Amino acid sequence: MNLPRSFASDNSAGVHPKILQAIVSANQGHAIAYGEDPFTESAVRKFQEHFGDNIEVAFVFNGTGANVVGLSTITRSFHSILCSEVAHINVDECNAPERLAGCKLVPIPTEDGKLTIEQIQPYLRGFGVEHHAQPGVISITQTTEFGTVYRPQEIQVLADFAHRHGLLIHMDGARLSNAAASLDVPLRQITTDVGVDVLSFGGTKNGMMFGEAVIFFDRQLAETLRYFRKQCTQLASKMRFIAAQFEALLSNDLWLTNAQHANLMAQRLAEGLTGIPEIAIMQPVEANAIFAAVPKEIIPSLQEHYYFYVWDEPRAEVRWMTAFDTTEEDVRAFIEAIKKARHAAHGY
Amino acid sequence: MNLPRSFASDNSAGVHPKILQAIVSANQGHAIAYGEDPFTESAVRKFQEHFGDNIEVAFVFNGTGANVVGLSTITRSFHSILCSEVAHINVDECNAPERLAGCKLVPIPTEDGKLTIEQIQPYLRGFGVEHHAQPGVISITQTTEFGTVYRPQEIQVLADFAHRHGLLIHMDGARLSNAAASLDVPLRQITTDVGVDVLSFGGTKNGMMFGEAVIFFDRQLAETLRYFRKQCTQLASKMRFIAAQFEALLSNDLWLTNAQHANLMAQRLAEGLTGIPEIAIMQPVEANAIFAAVPKEIIPSLQEHYYFYVWDEPRAEVRWMTAFDTTEEDVRAFIEAIKKARHAAHGY
Amino acid sequence: MNLPRSFASDNSAGVHPKILQAIVSANQGHAIAYGEDPFTESAVRKFQEHFGDNIEVAFVFNGTGANVVGLSTITRSFHSILCSEVAHINVDECNAPERLAGCKLVPIPTEDGKLTIEQIQPYLRGFGVEHHAQPGVISITQTTEFGTVYRPQEIQVLADFAHRHGLLIHMDGARLSNAAASLDVPLRQITTDVGVDVLSFGGTKNGMMFGEAVIFFDRQLAETLRYFRKQCTQLASKMRFIAAQFEALLSNDLWLTNAQHANLMAQRLAEGLTGIPEIAIMQPVEANAIFAAVPKEIIPSLQEHYYFYVWDEPRAEVRWMTAFDTTEEDVRAFIEAIKKARHAAHGY
Amino acid sequence: MNLPRSFASDNSAGVHPKILQAIVSANQGHAIAYGEDPFTESAVRKFQEHFGDNIEVAFVFNGTGANVVGLSTITRSFHSILCSEVAHINVDECNAPERLAGCKLVPIPTEDGKLTIEQIQPYLRGFGVEHHAQPGVISITQTTEFGTVYRPQEIQVLADFAHRHGLLIHMDGARLSNAAASLDVPLRQITTDVGVDVLSFGGTKNGMMFGEAVIFFDRQLAETLRYFRKQCTQLASKMRFIAAQFEALLSNDLWLTNAQHANLMAQRLAEGLTGIPEIAIMQPVEANAIFAAVPKEIIPSLQEHYYFYVWDEPRAEVRWMTAFDTTEEDVRAFIEAIKKARHAAHGY
Repeated sequence: MNLPRSFASDNSAGVHPKILQAIVSANQGHAIAYGEDPFTESAVRKFQEHFGDNIEVAFVFNGTGANVVGLSTITRSFHSILCSEVAHINVDECNAPERLAGCKLVPIPTEDGKLTIEQIQPYLRGFGVEHHAQPGVISITQTTEFGTVYRPQEIQVLADFAHRHGLLIHMDGARLSNAAASLDVPLRQITTDVGVDVLSFGGTKNGMMFGEAVIFFDRQLAETLRYFRKQCTQLASKMRFIAAQFEALLSNDLWLTNAQHANLMAQRLAEGLTGIPEIAIMQPVEANAIFAAVPKEIIPSLQEHYYFYVWDEPRAEVRWMTAFDTTEEDVRAFIEAIKKARHAAHGY
Repeated sequence: MNLPRSFASDNSAGVHPKILQAIVSANQGHAIAYGEDPFTESAVRKFQEHFGDNIEVAFVFNGTGANVVGLSTITRSFHSILCSEVAHINVDECNAPERLAGCKLVPIPTEDGKLTIEQIQPYLRGFGVEHHAQPGVISITQTTEFGTVYRPQEIQVLADFAHRHGLLIHMDGARLSNAAASLDVPLRQITTDVGVDVLSFGGTKNGMMFGEAVIFFDRQLAETLRYFRKQCTQLASKMRFIAAQFEALLSNDLWLTNAQHANLMAQRLAEGLTGIPEIAIMQPVEANAIFAAVPKEIIPSLQEHYYFYVWDEPRAEVRWMTAFDTTEEDVRAFIEAIKKARHAAHGY
Repeated sequence: MNLPRSFASDNSAGVHPKILQAIVSANQGHAIAYGEDPFTESAVRKFQEHFGDNIEVAFVFNGTGANVVGLSTITRSFHSILCSEVAHINVDECNAPERLAGCKLVPIPTEDGKLTIEQIQPYLRGFGVEHHAQPGVISITQTTEFGTVYRPQEIQVLADFAHRHGLLIHMDGARLSNAAASLDVPLRQITTDVGVDVLSFGGTKNGMMFGEAVIFFDRQLAETLRYFRKQCTQLASKMRFIAAQFEALLSNDLWLTNAQHANLMAQRLAEGLTGIPEIAIMQPVEANAIFAAVPKEIIPSLQEHYYFYVWDEPRAEVRWMTAFDTTEEDVRAFIEAIKKARHAAHGY
Repeated sequence: MNLPRSFASDNSAGVHPKILQAIVSANQGHAIAYGEDPFTESAVRKFQEHFGDNIEVAFVFNGTGANVVGLSTITRSFHSILCSEVAHINVDECNAPERLAGCKLVPIPTEDGKLTIEQIQPYLRGFGVEHHAQPGVISITQTTEFGTVYRPQEIQVLADFAHRHGLLIHMDGARLSNAAASLDVPLRQITTDVGVDVLSFGGTKNGMMFGEAVIFFDRQLAETLRYFRKQCTQLASKMRFIAAQFEALLSNDLWLTNAQHANLMAQRLAEGLTGIPEIAIMQPVEANAIFAAVPKEIIPSLQEHYYFYVWDEPRAEVRWMTAFDTTEEDVRAFIEAIKKARHAAHGY
């Protein structure tokens, strides 16, 4: 019933052994449900160590949940949420933000998944005019859906811009750890310290079984957070099993080690691809994703043994992702498979 | 960091060892995310063994999620959902059904949490008149929020009644296993065979870590299920870890053994309470819940050592629940504690 | 193509001639759309004369719109709105409040459509607990759906109670004028002066063609009003034609004259019914509605000539309403028709 | 209290005398509320004369209401609605479609407000994949927000394309009459006959006081229409006053005469602008709107006497609209004012 390690997504991976061990250890006796347990209390302290004492943290089940809970809490239904055209909230959440928050998503085209104030500026209009959605939030993804990474200064510039216009900064950090690892900075240097208001902090894609955290950097914004978590169906009863995972992830740099490893494997894969003709890497490989344009013909034969997503059918652009558990051997084998498929198709 | 076993709720319990073992076993290699994995396929077959081949099953994170996904799929926003006044969907989901499905909940007073057609009849009105919510669903809870249990025939009568009027039957089965154990019938005899249309099947309260299932007994009703699961933020990426738990729960009668034990412990507790003066059991003890009116004074002293909920403050009515892991010794100790608290308060 | 005047509802009536004249007079030249016109400015001043200078007023199309705009503005989706079981928002708005505001409506049984703090008290629970809807608003109807009228002091008591618990008072005043006429008090004495926070002020049922007003008595609460009016589809482009109607209605006591007349006609009808055997008036006739239990057999024959609603089928309770244009002759003829129908059915 | 006729919008105009007369004539006696009156019945027949017998028509208050009612009825919340980037539903309805239908709006850039299948094609993706919004509706505006007009064949091509992919065609026809007048075709030739599924038919901008119609060309699609009209707060009680207006508008070609006149005035204005240096008309003048790039300096001085909207601030592009009541003299005076303002600013 076991599958080979794929390059489809970091959520194809299983659970890191230390995190699984934390789950097993948490399974003792009874604990008050819904987060009133000592595991949760302790995990929250861990988050405070990383992100500062003045945060409010709510654990949730998954990434869409984290985004929707955070966005519902900081918006009214007449707001618009400005985001990259390829943002997960825009493309991969089946209208959950629209349905649950009522807001309009304003998709902004980008080259690399990163927004700039120049790109956002034209969409900042209609303030105070009741006919128009009121710009309320700029949502950025770190690392982006293209595997690229915002520098701290880039986030600071966006946050200052947002706040100057009365907007808030939401960050979808499903892969925040990969960004911090890539930049070699602490987590707070790309969140707390540069003006992010609300963060979805990812656990599942970095070695957890399930569980994400919604972090508010201003407690006043979080007053209604608890209600929206519950209402968005994201309140876990046996919360200790999310908390224990985060406790493990945020201890002994496990979050960092996992992310560094995934990033490194992506580098190795990118290096291996460099030498192959007709394979073009389309985005800077800054974290654990590779976007590559490949000969259309090799896709089906590769997919016989490796499950992965075709990002852009007409351009034959594929997405390959590495995970905390990808091995050097996995990468080597995959590169060989690509070479073989290309050779079979093109004969040279 | 460990807590004593409480009588607060069956979700204060941890995870059954066999289920935890299943989780550990599932943690091997990569699996396609979002349910396209062999674990999920296999668990779905288990459900079919219990509920019949023609069902559609979707795994979700939690009970509120299961209810909202099921109800969203079978309603339009102009429908009303008729339910008991104490229904979880009415009282304990922070308006998630209203906000996500748009529907009106129509709370109907009951004695014991069980609805009858006589009670429902007066609310069946306004059909075809655009001013009024259109009755769309009767939602019942098995076992009820009062720990009582619908007989198969009672469900059949409600289902026939519902279908005759063009309504559907939704069952919140967060504790369905306890009901089946109590009645000593297979699961299908209180669902598939008696006209239920959509079921939330509970896992978390019966020994799982997290995970519930939404079951549709008519596949035609389930055509949009997948979209509503995603949109309601209830689609898990590492789905295999829910599937593996259900596989274990539905194998070797674990679901039944767990539920039987919890029910038995409630019986033991009820028996022990019988002899204590001034303690009145308020509802038939048919599953794993006990509702008791107690001398107001004993509540705080008992709560010093045992966490539990006061159901009705003015009447000093408390709810005590047993779980799959409650021991005879737990029950004995709790009865002693109650006696002691009563004695301390009343002196005789 | 003309129909006889009925006793079905005050919205079966047409438009008062003075209001129609105001519409005709407003039809000159161009005016800026959406309320930036002098007609609207002037009508707002009229409202300030009646309700005080510190109000915020928004004109809307209809009663459901007024209620939903007001309630959306003062709630978040985790709130509950406590109201009488027969409240228009609960029974006659096809889930618009649930769908648009997301809130739960909590229907409270009453004898006469009027809520008391004793009736509300048991529903004030769950504060601060995320599982439960948070009590946010008490919504009362003046005059009630049963044609009864709150005394100023009764409203004050409810408002104090609401504010003490952190709730707001919403008043559905579709027939507020009838209440003021009944009590012989100025409009502000049952709104501004007694603690109402948000009011739906009715125009249509008191002689207007279309148009209601949402009035906020605390401008801070109204900051988002303009957006919710637009989003709830209630922003009229040619606003001057609502404004001109209100200008006429609120000038020269037309609102009062119309309401007094409708109330008087209901009194006349009630007096005429008194002498008829087997006709029982079920609610105090305090405004322009009469609820009467009648011999079941007379309903169909009466309805051949008079359109009206059967309020409670099993009890053969009907609702008859008078309007600003009901004449003494209409009432006499209707009483005769009732007598005749009763005689035909019972033969004595 | 009167304003000069402006070129701000066709909803700055008042009511056509014949329509006002129809309102006055309808004000006799009582009529059953909510559309069960003979005026409504008769107006529906008029619509059938123009659009065919098999339509379902619902009258509503305003354009946003018409769009939202129509779209709510034909979508589920997981659908996306593809529309032009400048579509009224996307830009001018303050998220009403997102909030009320739950759907995602997918804005597609266009040159002239008209969509082509080439432009739409790239957005037709994700079918059957639960992560992605499911393409459900293509919404087009006739005449477009840029005053341009779809040819019948262009609509047919879009409709065939939509239906081939399982989507429906919604048309925002707030200015449908201007399009029909421009093309010199009957209304059905750009709706019924070319595959439109649901239409918002505009009255207010073509001489009515208030009132639009939602028309379904397939009655099966309209089964839930009545509930969504009520729930979206768009059900008028004194419906006869909308019906009577439509009766007048659709009789004796009044709809056509009004639209033809407005279009003609736009032509006159365009002709007058042609000779003026530094004024560039930016869009084909096909109906009653003119988009012109003008010297930035003349805008404020012109706006001292004429209220109008600046469409694109950076480009100094303004929108001027004519109405059914714009006179040749109005146009001449406006052209003179423009010339004068330009001369004052530029001195030659």
